[in-house]
Amino acid sequence: MDLLAMGSRAKVASRVLMRASTAQKDAALLALAILLEDQHNAAQVLAANAADLSQARDAGMSPALLDRLALTPQRLASIAADVRSVIALPDPVGEQIDRQPHPAGLDLQRVRTPLGVIGVIYEARPNVTVDVAALCLKSGNAAILRGGKEIMRSCAALGILVRQALATAGLPADAIQTIDDPDRALMQQLLRLDASVDVIIPRGGAALHRFCREHATVPVITGGIGVCHIYVDAAADQAQVVPIVRNAKIQRPGACNALDTLLVHRALAAQVLPAVVADLVSHGVELRLDEQALAIASAAGVAGAQVCPATAADFGTEFLALVASVRVVEDLDAAVAHIAQFGSGHTEAILSQDQAACAEFVAAVDAAVVMVNASTRFNDGAQLGLGAEIAISTQKLHARGPMALRELTTNKWIVTGNGQVRF
Amino acid sequence: MDLLAMGSRAKVASRVLMRASTAQKDAALLALAILLEDQHNAAQVLAANAADLSQARDAGMSPALLDRLALTPQRLASIAADVRSVIALPDPVGEQIDRQPHPAGLDLQRVRTPLGVIGVIYEARPNVTVDVAALCLKSGNAAILRGGKEIMRSCAALGILVRQALATAGLPADAIQTIDDPDRALMQQLLRLDASVDVIIPRGGAALHRFCREHATVPVITGGIGVCHIYVDAAADQAQVVPIVRNAKIQRPGACNALDTLLVHRALAAQVLPAVVADLVSHGVELRLDEQALAIASAAGVAGAQVCPATAADFGTEFLALVASVRVVEDLDAAVAHIAQFGSGHTEAILSQDQAACAEFVAAVDAAVVMVNASTRFNDGAQLGLGAEIAISTQKLHARGPMALRELTTNKWIVTGNGQVRF
Repeated sequence: MDLLAMGSRAKVASRVLMRASTAQKDAALLALAILLEDQHNAAQVLAANAADLSQARDAGMSPALLDRLALTPQRLASIAADVRSVIALPDPVGEQIDRQPHPAGLDLQRVRTPLGVIGVIYEARPNVTVDVAALCLKSGNAAILRGGKEIMRSCAALGILVRQALATAGLPADAIQTIDDPDRALMQQLLRLDASVDVIIPRGGAALHRFCREHATVPVITGGIGVCHIYVDAAADQAQVVPIVRNAKIQRPGACNALDTLLVHRALAAQVLPAVVADLVSHGVELRLDEQALAIASAAGVAGAQVCPATAADFGTEFLALVASVRVVEDLDAAVAHIAQFGSGHTEAILSQDQAACAEFVAAVDAAVVMVNASTRFNDGAQLGLGAEIAISTQKLHARGPMALRELTTNKWIVTGNGQVRF
Repeated sequence: MDLLAMGSRAKVASRVLMRASTAQKDAALLALAILLEDQHNAAQVLAANAADLSQARDAGMSPALLDRLALTPQRLASIAADVRSVIALPDPVGEQIDRQPHPAGLDLQRVRTPLGVIGVIYEARPNVTVDVAALCLKSGNAAILRGGKEIMRSCAALGILVRQALATAGLPADAIQTIDDPDRALMQQLLRLDASVDVIIPRGGAALHRFCREHATVPVITGGIGVCHIYVDAAADQAQVVPIVRNAKIQRPGACNALDTLLVHRALAAQVLPAVVADLVSHGVELRLDEQALAIASAAGVAGAQVCPATAADFGTEFLALVASVRVVEDLDAAVAHIAQFGSGHTEAILSQDQAACAEFVAAVDAAVVMVNASTRFNDGAQLGLGAEIAISTQKLHARGPMALRELTTNKWIVTGNGQVRF
């Protein structure tokens, strides 16, 4: 594949997308949903996916990963439904951000415009192809998509439908292109395509994000790595502790906003830890307890086979599984210090009825989302009112926290005068 | 110098700065202004600058560059006055960006918070040391500053005053640190200090920006390179053309928002070009004209010694001097296509009384600032109402156009509940 040529085509297409009307973009999204719902197309996509699955199975992929890779008629229907929901979201392009007069009589305004060309690099989840295409399209951006080598055929098949939908709506098919060649050199080339790519958004594990940072000259938005803490303060409402900790850990343990480390104020540890440990263990969670927590659990008789002493590696680790670590802390300052040392700036929570303690935690913790008396699982684009989510940024530039349509835009200053010069 | 240790100290200091009150930050700024105005301190800074100057002179630096490097009592007073003006600017930290309820009763808000630690790499302008320190401080950020090797002594002397001012106000001196060693390996290390630096802002020429992009793993905000065009449309008010073009080219030819290439609609070329050429020539501008423009200038008798035929290299070049290129274009579309090919996304202007033409130009040109019937020189933080300017970004991520205090912040989501879990 000639990535330079793909980049040039994307850039040309982006200039059309940048000016496409909401109606035209929505027509392309509707066409895409309809194409995905068509039996014949679905059969083609599923056949491509079956080939990917068969190769992955032969390569010894685990059943859990195979399941993430697999498409089914139901999953395709759900992907199509997600595309329809993007149609319903407001178009951010053209929104006026601010407007003010200049003393010399100039009219100064800033309006929201698309970023241009977005490169998205993801792993073995074929649905991302369509999700990302829909969000880029609605926000007026062109995109070059590079899915994991395990799903190249599935992505290519889905990419064909996206391009067909664009053409149906009179938009350039080159607005969405997929890299259908697993050669990693192409991925590296994408990361250095400054002439035509405005931003790279990686979606995947820590290794992918590091790889992109290391090799990119194009700006990269990193995120998605959540080492998330809940701090149970001395003034926590004890009735909230078990339900929130349980929800944060077990509702979707593979998600980046799932709980990793529970920090408990020593004044409340003996009262709350036995119930928390017993509840998590009963839900299949493996626990790594620090010395104090282990002593409490042992004394309460809840330190069974799923409970073991924590090692240094158990703090600062994103488990992405039914595993959590627990530490008893001296006070709120110690909790904040622990989070500063081990957190990834993703989601941090305090449980407390003490307003001053909550305010101190919120001010002192430097993270994309700080929760007060709520589950970490609410850090999500849909939950936070953005309507969708292309990624969760943990960096501070451009966007921090969930990213949706507005986060796929930039601004343009429009300065209108009648002959003004500067003195 | 141990850059890792500097980074760690900056990060620790940033956690204090992040929470410093406006009053405390303003007290540090006031202390800095007073220190700069003190005769004894001024003498120390000027002595350091004299040593820098002497070495640069010995190394054969040109008089123009020596002048940019030189500090004088007047320049120091003006630097102090700039610090006082930052005190008057509103503090962006803590501003509420938006707030909404979640259906489950959570309160969702986003507030503005400092970026954290900012690395600024600049060239031979010692005043940047204080300008940047003042803006970072007001926006609650720590900073590591690396000035050009030609001004290391001046920067170190100014850095001492900044640190003294911080201490006077009870803030950590390590919030602003200068790299006082010209070893380029240290600069490269700064570009890869992900553990403690949140963003790198280069201030300088294209080579510096490329170097940063190439070597950084920390996010970089590039900009400052302005290949700026003015398009004189067929419907331009002819009385505006000479004054705007003159202002854009000659008011400060070394600035990034100065005019580089004039594009003239062929319908108006014979009418406006002779006057424009004669005026620019009379102000000492060297002109590079395309074939059509040259024919018109020659016929009008204004193609003297300062006028020569344009070569390919004269389009897409940022001259930063009293030099400009001129091209006659078929129509607005040709002007837009020229800008798409040769512009740097900095500042582009149209002169036209035709509303539809202006709207088309504004929509079709993809740049940080698009001017209508006004000089390109208005692309400036103070002119656009930001009160100051740390850089002008030409990238699309995070900030596009002039960057001031708000552009040195990010956001934090604060989600407040009373026990909510996600279903």
